[in-house]
Amino acid sequence: MIEIKNYKDMEPFVPEERPWISKRVVIGKAHGNPSFAMRIFELQPGHTSKSHRHWWEHGVYVISGSGAVKAEDGTELPLSKGDVVYIPQEEHHQVCNTGSEVLSFICVIPGNAEELD
Amino acid sequence: MIEIKNYKDMEPFVPEERPWISKRVVIGKAHGNPSFAMRIFELQPGHTSKSHRHWWEHGVYVISGSGAVKAEDGTELPLSKGDVVYIPQEEHHQVCNTGSEVLSFICVIPGNAEELD
Repeated sequence: MIEIKNYKDMEPFVPEERPWISKRVVIGKAHGNPSFAMRIFELQPGHTSKSHRHWWEHGVYVISGSGAVKAEDGTELPLSKGDVVYIPQEEHHQVCNTGSEVLSFICVIPGNAEELD
Repeated sequence: MIEIKNYKDMEPFVPEERPWISKRVVIGKAHGNPSFAMRIFELQPGHTSKSHRHWWEHGVYVISGSGAVKAEDGTELPLSKGDVVYIPQEEHHQVCNTGSEVLSFICVIPGNAEELD
């Protein structure tokens, strides 16, 4: 069955140790076993996501706000509304909110990634 | 390598027989073989996408505009900014722009779907 919901109506998950980032799994395990998962993150100004890498790729779309993606060598690639980011497998990355408003972005991952919930 | 681009800087593909819809494949074959593809569509007011179904699922995010998704039985599920739509495999669907502005939406599909370009 086709399902429609507004992501803002979903309760976000906010990790205790990183209260400056929230996550909503808008498409994932709850839909059976789709071959990809879609998550929507909100990152507060002045904060960053974890600096990390993993075997799966990311497809990112910036909904609002501005910031940067920091690569392994420290390069900061600027990020703003309407930008699409492709982060290949095993590529080190960190998302930074360098602006003054919340940075909201979609992040798509493969359905077999170890980070589906 | 991490790649960032704004989707509006990409030349859209506009099918000759359906000039009211444009498509930009923002993540796809050009990135090697990612396990999903991300496309951004723009549908003009008063128009619809094809009414169809296929074996692969869709993950949709509405960037701007308003409209509806029409299911097989004719039901129209309203659609607006920030809405996320999950269309399961083999589910009949059609996107309709019932508003007065362009309906822009992201559509994610599996990397092995027969519609990657």
